[in-house]
Amino acid sequence: MSNFFVRTLREDPADAEVASHKLLVRAGYIRRAAPGIYTWMPLGLQVLRRVEQIVREEMEAIGGQEVHFPALLPAEPYQRTNRWEEYGPTLFKLKDRKDGDYLLAPTHEEMFTLLVKDMYSSYKDLPLTLYQIQTKYRDEARPRAGIIRGREFVMKDSYSFDLDDEGLDKSYEMHRQAYEKIFTRLGLEYAICQAMSGAMGGSRSEEFLHPCSIGEDTFVRSAGGYTANAEAVTTVAPDPVDASNVPAMELRETPGASTIAALVEYSNENYPRTDRPWQAADMLKSFVVTLTHPDGQEEVVNLAIPGDRDVDPKRLEAFFAPAEVALATAEDLAKHPELVAGYLGPQVCGAGAPGRTYDEDGNPQGAVRLLVDPRVVEGTEWITGGNREGFHAYHTVAGRDFTADGTAEVAEIKAGDPAPDGSGPLELARGIEIGHIFQLGRKYAKALDLQVLDQNGKTQVVTMGSYGIGVSRVMAALAEATADEKGLAWPMVVAPFHLHVLATGKGEEIFQTAADLASAVSEAGFEVLFDDRVKVSAGVKFADAELMGMPYALVVGRGLKDGVVELRNRRSGERTDLPVGEAAQRIIEILAENREATK
Amino acid sequence: MSNFFVRTLREDPADAEVASHKLLVRAGYIRRAAPGIYTWMPLGLQVLRRVEQIVREEMEAIGGQEVHFPALLPAEPYQRTNRWEEYGPTLFKLKDRKDGDYLLAPTHEEMFTLLVKDMYSSYKDLPLTLYQIQTKYRDEARPRAGIIRGREFVMKDSYSFDLDDEGLDKSYEMHRQAYEKIFTRLGLEYAICQAMSGAMGGSRSEEFLHPCSIGEDTFVRSAGGYTANAEAVTTVAPDPVDASNVPAMELRETPGASTIAALVEYSNENYPRTDRPWQAADMLKSFVVTLTHPDGQEEVVNLAIPGDRDVDPKRLEAFFAPAEVALATAEDLAKHPELVAGYLGPQVCGAGAPGRTYDEDGNPQGAVRLLVDPRVVEGTEWITGGNREGFHAYHTVAGRDFTADGTAEVAEIKAGDPAPDGSGPLELARGIEIGHIFQLGRKYAKALDLQVLDQNGKTQVVTMGSYGIGVSRVMAALAEATADEKGLAWPMVVAPFHLHVLATGKGEEIFQTAADLASAVSEAGFEVLFDDRVKVSAGVKFADAELMGMPYALVVGRGLKDGVVELRNRRSGERTDLPVGEAAQRIIEILAENREATK
Repeated sequence: MSNFFVRTLREDPADAEVASHKLLVRAGYIRRAAPGIYTWMPLGLQVLRRVEQIVREEMEAIGGQEVHFPALLPAEPYQRTNRWEEYGPTLFKLKDRKDGDYLLAPTHEEMFTLLVKDMYSSYKDLPLTLYQIQTKYRDEARPRAGIIRGREFVMKDSYSFDLDDEGLDKSYEMHRQAYEKIFTRLGLEYAICQAMSGAMGGSRSEEFLHPCSIGEDTFVRSAGGYTANAEAVTTVAPDPVDASNVPAMELRETPGASTIAALVEYSNENYPRTDRPWQAADMLKSFVVTLTHPDGQEEVVNLAIPGDRDVDPKRLEAFFAPAEVALATAEDLAKHPELVAGYLGPQVCGAGAPGRTYDEDGNPQGAVRLLVDPRVVEGTEWITGGNREGFHAYHTVAGRDFTADGTAEVAEIKAGDPAPDGSGPLELARGIEIGHIFQLGRKYAKALDLQVLDQNGKTQVVTMGSYGIGVSRVMAALAEATADEKGLAWPMVVAPFHLHVLATGKGEEIFQTAADLASAVSEAGFEVLFDDRVKVSAGVKFADAELMGMPYALVVGRGLKDGVVELRNRRSGERTDLPVGEAAQRIIEILAENREATK
Repeated sequence: MSNFFVRTLREDPADAEVASHKLLVRAGYIRRAAPGIYTWMPLGLQVLRRVEQIVREEMEAIGGQEVHFPALLPAEPYQRTNRWEEYGPTLFKLKDRKDGDYLLAPTHEEMFTLLVKDMYSSYKDLPLTLYQIQTKYRDEARPRAGIIRGREFVMKDSYSFDLDDEGLDKSYEMHRQAYEKIFTRLGLEYAICQAMSGAMGGSRSEEFLHPCSIGEDTFVRSAGGYTANAEAVTTVAPDPVDASNVPAMELRETPGASTIAALVEYSNENYPRTDRPWQAADMLKSFVVTLTHPDGQEEVVNLAIPGDRDVDPKRLEAFFAPAEVALATAEDLAKHPELVAGYLGPQVCGAGAPGRTYDEDGNPQGAVRLLVDPRVVEGTEWITGGNREGFHAYHTVAGRDFTADGTAEVAEIKAGDPAPDGSGPLELARGIEIGHIFQLGRKYAKALDLQVLDQNGKTQVVTMGSYGIGVSRVMAALAEATADEKGLAWPMVVAPFHLHVLATGKGEEIFQTAADLASAVSEAGFEVLFDDRVKVSAGVKFADAELMGMPYALVVGRGLKDGVVELRNRRSGERTDLPVGEAAQRIIEILAENREATK
């Protein structure tokens, strides 16, 4: 410690909100160089390397071959797949001295595809898995939580190349298992979440989330084992309802009741139900959005969802992707005079609406498209907007008074909603995305023309998978998961040092004994940090050791005159007195046992 | 080999001129992603890692502590040291989404200085050596020779921090020895060259050059052990000459003789000497440059050098640094009507020139500054320009007919020139710069305010050293040094595989024996590549093995029916038949012995 390049800080960094960020900075593992851009100090670099090494071993175990691409890349391949534009301001772009367009790669699908195209041409060369552990760049709008969401970060990205779908399934499954092994070895809790809504079709995609209150991602899980990203959850639709006894739709005056809460209150005061009070769930609210389709076409869509639910922005975005979706502006609405802001109901939209026709391709024309929440099944009764300023429509029945063009999975998930697979009610949780596995299919191979000859001499477009682990983020998640109020508390498997030896007190004997024990344990193949600072109090040494978080600390101090030293387990807090003569051997046994357990 | 991600190429890449570039691409070690930007294939990445590891071990051995800085950095620290501007178009610059200025770091002096300032404050914290092995960026005007001069490259840069000059000398010396060890371990020939001209003053600086015909750097060496960069060589000035018998300067007509060659010819025809013919070395040519000083001031300077030498552009640049130097333009000359292009002599310039005055600071005014080659000592006689169209001046004597303001080390070095330390005549050689050690002194610490308290409680500016090794370039230099006409030929110490096992021929026995031997050697801790491809001819396998360049190849083929396999040494070409039963053991011994020798 007397010449190790580390300084612990007493104060949390001003910009830090989450524990791992505070502690990694305070304990001298990382330092901020710019927003979302960090310098790795000796301690932090050690942990990062150990995480990398575990990832590398498991990638090698499934036959992954390591390569390393440049971070600085020409724009051209990214222009061919349109990601040069699609990434928007998240892409760091620059020019070289010849005015050529370059980027700092956020991910390398294009380059891997082109490399394989460049090298391989036959089905005999497949399957193939390539990976790299590399520094990536994303100009995040809101970098946060230290290295959890940085702008320069370390990622393992791998790509599988297969001739056919079965091959892709196999490569995907191998990665899935490798990821489970990696996070298990790291001792990092994870949930595998479906990441792609079935409604969207498309290929398989799962996220590995580390459940954690400071996580940015919301996911759901049921007691029966269903786990998914909020975006991927499909709503369980109830059975249709017999509405033959529902009175005819009736327009009633509801002055000023332009919100759901106001409408509920106004309805209970002026048009009370006899059986029970009106509730938000009786209302059907309209949410009008403007889609920008990939071909540039704009379309206004009316989304009707029950009044007790909000639209979930992430589900909304995911549902309409690749179209971009935004709240309809006053200008957008002005093009459709039938849409009365604040009093809009589904009756003027959708398949049954006046003026609705279809073009020869079957695309709806003349009335705005109406998509409803899956709970809005035929026969359900609602209070809806009256399509007239100051009025709402009561006894509005789905399928009788309006007809949707389809359903939309855009409403928020609530705790208690049923899991789509029938495995029970959902609970909501937050998590940090630590891995993502994704069946890309033939998108990149088609765009960049990666084909091979098959067994029959025919050209086949290769099918690909893409698999990522946020290596630096995993380190932060581990810090977050293991830290306590005193500081970091690394597991053996990634700790920069296994043992932290503290010489506390005065006298040459204490320092000499501590040095001897440190040497003995170090010679047995463990990493040892020796706090040999003189003129530093025992209290400061204890606090530093707890903050820095090595799995075991050995205190050589007052007890020495009685022939004992004390071994402390950082995570359990357990303290064991060891006779000084046996200490080295005992510690080596304990460390070896503990290390073995995490292999 | 049947599933290893490599493809050898028969053709040299179109843009490759040097052997290492051609072979590293052809043998599947690297691939071009953009000019000067390369992808590391599995083979190349292995070699790079092994070079890195040796560098890392030797940096750790001198107490270096490893950190890792971002490559993407904010402009601000580089603006404070003025390097944001000084680097010019070689710096990759970019903006983030908030219009902030960023750069891709070409080197990290500023960041290391700021980090230490951030962490340390006392003399007790020093000395300190930090290093990183990291990807660096320079937008070279002419990237060349593959990874020898790339735009994205891997570098080890380290920095020493000391309280005083003696400390810096010690840190410098430790680095110098570590570098010697590194290049010795790698088996890479090197010459340590003085890199800073004594005339410039300043601190110690040496370059490690790998002597190599394709190198970009010229250096000189004498039999007596003097070695220096061409820029650092000082000219040995002769003693002054007694010129009392030289006739008075005489202007003679020399129509059309505006080059040295023409002047020599014209002089011999029209004004012959009696003792010997005129030679280029009798002429004194004027070379007019315009300096742009760091403060933006421009100055025209007349450089007078003997007619048998050219100006060396690198020496010229180094001599006038930090001023920028360019050939004077017609416009620049027009401001000084006394300078007659093609017929300019030193008489109208310098200390003795008409119109020369000095300002109160002693700066010359009124006549252009005259700097002469150190060989132009007092009393030497020359033919110079006549300062009149079509005329030259004969019997022009230095110190009599013109007086210089000083000397300039800008003329080229020629083989046979005396070494400045008296160690004999110089020979010229070319080399690749593989390392550079440099006493920065207090430049960065001053600019960025890195101070510590000394033993007496006084603040002291820290003194720094900066030390670099071009890790990826070292790999290319090694390839260049060891390759032959058949391909690469790696030394054991960096080879991606130690043994290349070739199954040549048909029959399961051959493949099985080869597989068994490969396993046995691999289990003994060596890296083995097994060419298990069926339907690939022995000829192709031999050629691939020679191209890829593993130190040893084991051929299991025709000989097997007689119970022998053949071990081939790639570099010596030596072939040894081994009885198949003893082969594994013998090979393991040979490999172990060979590996031991390079530790």
